[in-house]
Amino acid sequence: MAHALTHAPGPLEREVLALVATVVPTDPAASERAWERLDSLTKPPRSLGRLEEVAARVATVQDDVRPSASPAAIVLCAGDHGVVAEGVSPWPSEVTQQMVANFAAGGAAINQIAGHVGARLVLADVGVAGDTSGVPGVLQRKVRAGTRNLAVGPAMTREEAAEAFLAGAAIARELTAEGVRVLGTGEMGIGNTTPASALVSVLAGVDPARVVGPGTGLDAAGMAHKAAVVARGIAANEPSAADPFGTLAALGGLELAAMAGVLVGGAAARACVVADGFISSAASLAAVRICPHGAGYLFPSHLSLEPGHRVVLDALGLEPVLALDMRLGEGTGGALAIGVMGAACAMMSGMATFAEAGVSGRDDA
Amino acid sequence: MAHALTHAPGPLEREVLALVATVVPTDPAASERAWERLDSLTKPPRSLGRLEEVAARVATVQDDVRPSASPAAIVLCAGDHGVVAEGVSPWPSEVTQQMVANFAAGGAAINQIAGHVGARLVLADVGVAGDTSGVPGVLQRKVRAGTRNLAVGPAMTREEAAEAFLAGAAIARELTAEGVRVLGTGEMGIGNTTPASALVSVLAGVDPARVVGPGTGLDAAGMAHKAAVVARGIAANEPSAADPFGTLAALGGLELAAMAGVLVGGAAARACVVADGFISSAASLAAVRICPHGAGYLFPSHLSLEPGHRVVLDALGLEPVLALDMRLGEGTGGALAIGVMGAACAMMSGMATFAEAGVSGRDDA
Repeated sequence: MAHALTHAPGPLEREVLALVATVVPTDPAASERAWERLDSLTKPPRSLGRLEEVAARVATVQDDVRPSASPAAIVLCAGDHGVVAEGVSPWPSEVTQQMVANFAAGGAAINQIAGHVGARLVLADVGVAGDTSGVPGVLQRKVRAGTRNLAVGPAMTREEAAEAFLAGAAIARELTAEGVRVLGTGEMGIGNTTPASALVSVLAGVDPARVVGPGTGLDAAGMAHKAAVVARGIAANEPSAADPFGTLAALGGLELAAMAGVLVGGAAARACVVADGFISSAASLAAVRICPHGAGYLFPSHLSLEPGHRVVLDALGLEPVLALDMRLGEGTGGALAIGVMGAACAMMSGMATFAEAGVSGRDDA
Repeated sequence: MAHALTHAPGPLEREVLALVATVVPTDPAASERAWERLDSLTKPPRSLGRLEEVAARVATVQDDVRPSASPAAIVLCAGDHGVVAEGVSPWPSEVTQQMVANFAAGGAAINQIAGHVGARLVLADVGVAGDTSGVPGVLQRKVRAGTRNLAVGPAMTREEAAEAFLAGAAIARELTAEGVRVLGTGEMGIGNTTPASALVSVLAGVDPARVVGPGTGLDAAGMAHKAAVVARGIAANEPSAADPFGTLAALGGLELAAMAGVLVGGAAARACVVADGFISSAASLAAVRICPHGAGYLFPSHLSLEPGHRVVLDALGLEPVLALDMRLGEGTGGALAIGVMGAACAMMSGMATFAEAGVSGRDDA
């Protein structure tokens, strides 16, 4: 079996393991210092709810009671999927390449939303079927021109998955070296709710029918077909949740592996990494299973309409901050959440304490 | 009975009625044009969920398919409440005045969050018990030094409520005349979840026990006491949901009346008005009952932990965009939502259409 647990890791997978070993857990003492400051500020304690949790978590990652969510960057990874041959998407694969050109030209939703929150947009081709080398500003990190069809066998070899993962990690390392403190993961890949559903089904241990949703526009019959394709893929690959990297290789996509690499690479550099919707969160779940210490660096954004997204967030123990019924991807929800993180950090960094402002406490305190 | 339906309106209430009559409904044709553009942009139709709804509604208010959420301003109205004599808040009334000074000095949560989203903060004393005239930058619009105790009789006369309402409307008129297109309503007033609960209980027709919550820090016994105070206030004043202005006067607060005025004054000037949490939303409900056409100009922000907030949002038919379990007030949730509105408008204004970007449509379309 190609994806047995007892494989000898290849050279690239050994690099992945070496990177994972460099990720340190966030510091509980830093978290205590963060909450001490938050509770001293001029507001009833915890009255800003999850906004305070977000601020405290950024402060913990940065070990600074005056945290900052800037500079921020969205890393948008693009790839195609052999499984579209099974008719799992109403959109043709060439839309992936066309949308990469649209991102580069500034015409997509993520361009506008990232621009509004002041986040830089970085585009990476890790597996688009067509050629994007002529598109200005697209990092050429193509591992192969789309995955193989996961319904009949492994979507990627372990070494291909490792190459995509390391490409994402390298981009995170370069951006954080330039000073970026918050990374968002985004994706473009026609058909990629299918690999994401397969990945989540195995890693969270739930039936494909509970995970599969309409994606970018399937009807009920289309969803039933997609669930059946996912089930076939799981049966064909026999992945094990105990081998998350092998599961990512067998069932994932090149852009999912790259996003997992962005999270682990970002965590290694002590940056915050913001998940977007279902696909980005599925990649985050794989990353956290591969690198459990990475969880401290991962931030949720929104809850998408894709039913599997709730499954992933529960598996990650994350609660979204935005309720917008979005299902686009591209990193759009993550970019919106970066705006909320910025407000959270501004609140924590700039507010006065009760003592500084001369405001009275509770009568009963 | 002081608040009978068959009163002869005083001169200030007649001004309120005259202002209400100037509010025109938003234009369904503008909404159609907005959705036509949104559905032509390079994304699966409606895949940005409520972000598209927000953009469409701003576009409808502005009758412009390239809408803008800037410039924005938060109008923070402050007032005190006679009902604190009933022991409904763990915080002393002087905190209202102290927090006004904190807002003016830039030390509160709303200062940081409004600053982060680029919204101007405007402070108005419409009923603080103490003197704020020495605090720089506070608009002096005090109607009286706190309301009367609503548990034993009307919190305000109708003319007092009208004066506060018109003060809020005048601030909205001045800001929109200076070019502001989005107004957020915020408040500060120790004890003001009690009048807000009373108002919502009557206007939404639900039992006080379903509306009353912990406010800024009551325990279960405190909440039961607060619900009993609300019930006493309703019994003492005999307000009628069919007379929303009389209900606002009898059970509301000066800052609630002023925020209702901001909504109606903003709607009269074709501005968008963003509600904040429970108290701001309670004022919005009163405003929309007084001026039904105002509903088209009202935008939700977050869902607070206060149980009555869900009741108000349902009564208004609004769904929040943020899920942060906040319960602070001050306009903080509204300011965060203004950030989301800005992103929604940027998306709608700046994205390319499928035709412009040369992106293929669905295979089945």
